Amino acid sequence: MQSKTAYNLDKYTRQRIKQIDQALNKFLPGPRSKPITIHRAMRHSLFAGGKRIRPIITLASAEACGGLVSRAIPLACAVECIHTYSLIHDDLPSLDNDDFRRGHPTNHKVFGEGIAILAGDALLTQAFDIAARTKPTKRYSIAKTTLELTHTSGSQQLIAGQVADLEGEGKKLTLAQLRYIHERKTSALLTCAARLGGMSANCTTTQLKALTDFGRHIGLAFQVIDDILDVTQTSKQLGKTAGKDQAVNKATYPAAVGLNKSKKIAKNLTDKAYMALKPFKGKAVALEAIAGYLLDREY
Amino acid sequence: MQSKTAYNLDKYTRQRIKQIDQALNKFLPGPRSKPITIHRAMRHSLFAGGKRIRPIITLASAEACGGLVSRAIPLACAVECIHTYSLIHDDLPSLDNDDFRRGHPTNHKVFGEGIAILAGDALLTQAFDIAARTKPTKRYSIAKTTLELTHTSGSQQLIAGQVADLEGEGKKLTLAQLRYIHERKTSALLTCAARLGGMSANCTTTQLKALTDFGRHIGLAFQVIDDILDVTQTSKQLGKTAGKDQAVNKATYPAAVGLNKSKKIAKNLTDKAYMALKPFKGKAVALEAIAGYLLDREY
Repeated sequence: MQSKTAYNLDKYTRQRIKQIDQALNKFLPGPRSKPITIHRAMRHSLFAGGKRIRPIITLASAEACGGLVSRAIPLACAVECIHTYSLIHDDLPSLDNDDFRRGHPTNHKVFGEGIAILAGDALLTQAFDIAARTKPTKRYSIAKTTLELTHTSGSQQLIAGQVADLEGEGKKLTLAQLRYIHERKTSALLTCAARLGGMSANCTTTQLKALTDFGRHIGLAFQVIDDILDVTQTSKQLGKTAGKDQAVNKATYPAAVGLNKSKKIAKNLTDKAYMALKPFKGKAVALEAIAGYLLDREY
Repeated sequence: MQSKTAYNLDKYTRQRIKQIDQALNKFLPGPRSKPITIHRAMRHSLFAGGKRIRPIITLASAEACGGLVSRAIPLACAVECIHTYSLIHDDLPSLDNDDFRRGHPTNHKVFGEGIAILAGDALLTQAFDIAARTKPTKRYSIAKTTLELTHTSGSQQLIAGQVADLEGEGKKLTLAQLRYIHERKTSALLTCAARLGGMSANCTTTQLKALTDFGRHIGLAFQVIDDILDVTQTSKQLGKTAGKDQAVNKATYPAAVGLNKSKKIAKNLTDKAYMALKPFKGKAVALEAIAGYLLDREY
C-alpha cells in the first residue's frame, strides 16, 4: 500500500502483512494435514495475495489504543478468515458467479463447488476457533469478542448484505437500499475489524465508539470506491472480472448517482472517517494513512 | 421415539423436543426479521420435524451428571444448529445432491442454491452466537465449550468426513476408510453433543470420558444403522431418498461387509455404548434408552 501522506504506510503494511501471514500459517492446519484437499483449498484463498486491509485495521486500531500488535494478531486473523470465507461463498456460481479473485482463479474453479463450499465453512469455523484461543482483556471477555464476530457475520449483517445484494440484482434500488447492502456486506466487517483491535488493547468506551465510527465510514467509502473501480479499471488492474456489476445490472453507486457524485460521496465518507479519529490525538497515524490510501486507489 | 425398554423414552423425548424447539425459536431471529428470505430458509430446515437426537443427548448427558436441563439447553441448541447447517450444505447439488430431507424438500429445492448456502452459513454462525451466550461453569469456560464446537465442526472432523465421503464416491473403500468417514461425519458431533451436556453440568473428568466413549460408540452405531436403513427402507419411511447410497455407488457398511455383518457390528457398538455408561450407576437411564432406540429403528 502506498499513501500520499508523509507517513510510510507501505513499510507499515509490509511489516504487518508479514506478521499476519505468519500467524495465519500457524493457526491453520498444515497443507499436508488430512484431508489434504480441504486444507489446500482453505490455503488457496487465504494466501492468494490479499491486501489484508481488515486485519491491518485491527492491528492499527490496537496500536491507536496503546495496545500491542502481538495481542491483536489472533483477532486480526479471525477477521481475515471470515472475510476469506465470505469471498469463497460469494464467488460461487449460485451467488456472484466470479471466476477470478485477487488475480487467481476462484476457489470453486480450482477445487470444484463442493470443496469450495466446505473450504468456506471450514474457514468460518476456524475464525471462531482462533477467537476462542485469544487471551481476554479486563473489559472484553472471550464471550464478548466472539459475539462481536457472530453479530457481524450473522444473518442480520454480513449475510443479510449478501442476501439483499442477491435479491437486488436487476432491480433499480434506491440509495437507502444500496446503503443497507453496503453497511452489511462491507462496512460491518471493517467496523468489526477496528473494534476488535480496540478490544484486544482493552480500550475505553470512548475509544471503542471512535473506532466504530471510523470503521463504519471507511467501510462505506470502501464499497463506493469498489463500485467506482469496477467501472473505471480493467480486469488486470482489479485482479477480478471488471465491469461485472454493469453486466449483471447490479445496483451500484455509479449506476445510481453517476461517477462524479460517487467520487464526492467517497471523499465525504473518508473525511468523516478522519474526523472519527480525533479522540486518538495523533496516535492513529496508521489508521489515517489507511483511510487516505483507500480513497486514493487509482480510478 | 419409542424404546423397547421399560423406560418411557417417548414421553421423555416429547418433553425435551418441546423445550429444545422453544429455545431454538427464541435464539433465532424471528421469521419476520429482515431479510425475511434468509430467516425463513434457516427456519425451514431447523423446524423441519427432525428427531432432535443430538440436542436430546446433550440434555440427557447433563442430567446423567446431575445437571439441570435449563443449563444445558443453549449448548443443545448450538449443536442442533451445527447439525442442520451441515445437512443443508451436504444436500446441495455439488455435494450429496439430495432433494428430500426429513420428508420435506431440501433447502435449496425451496429457496435456491445461493440462499441455501447462506442459510447454512448463518446457522453455523448462530451456533457460536448461542454458545457464547451460555453461562460458563467452574470447570468449563466459554472458550472451552466454543473450542469443543470448533474442533468438532472443523476441517479435521465434521468437514473432513464430508470431504472423505465426497472423494470416496464410486471407490471401493476399506473398512478402516469407511470408519474414518463415519467417525468424523457422524460420530464426532454425537460425541460433542454428549460432552457439552456434561460440561454444562460441570462434570468430572471421569464423567466426561464416559460421555466421550458413549458418544463415539453410539455415533458409529448410528451411521452403520443409517447405511442399513438406506438399503432396507422406502423413501417414505426414511423421509429422504432411499437406495441413494447404492445408486451413487457410495461406500457403506452393507456394501463392504453385507447386511448381516453390518447388523452385528451395530449391535456390538451399541453394547459398547451401554458399557460406557457404567460410571453413572443407573443415573443415565435416558441415554441408555436412546441407545436402545437407535439400534431398534425398523430394519
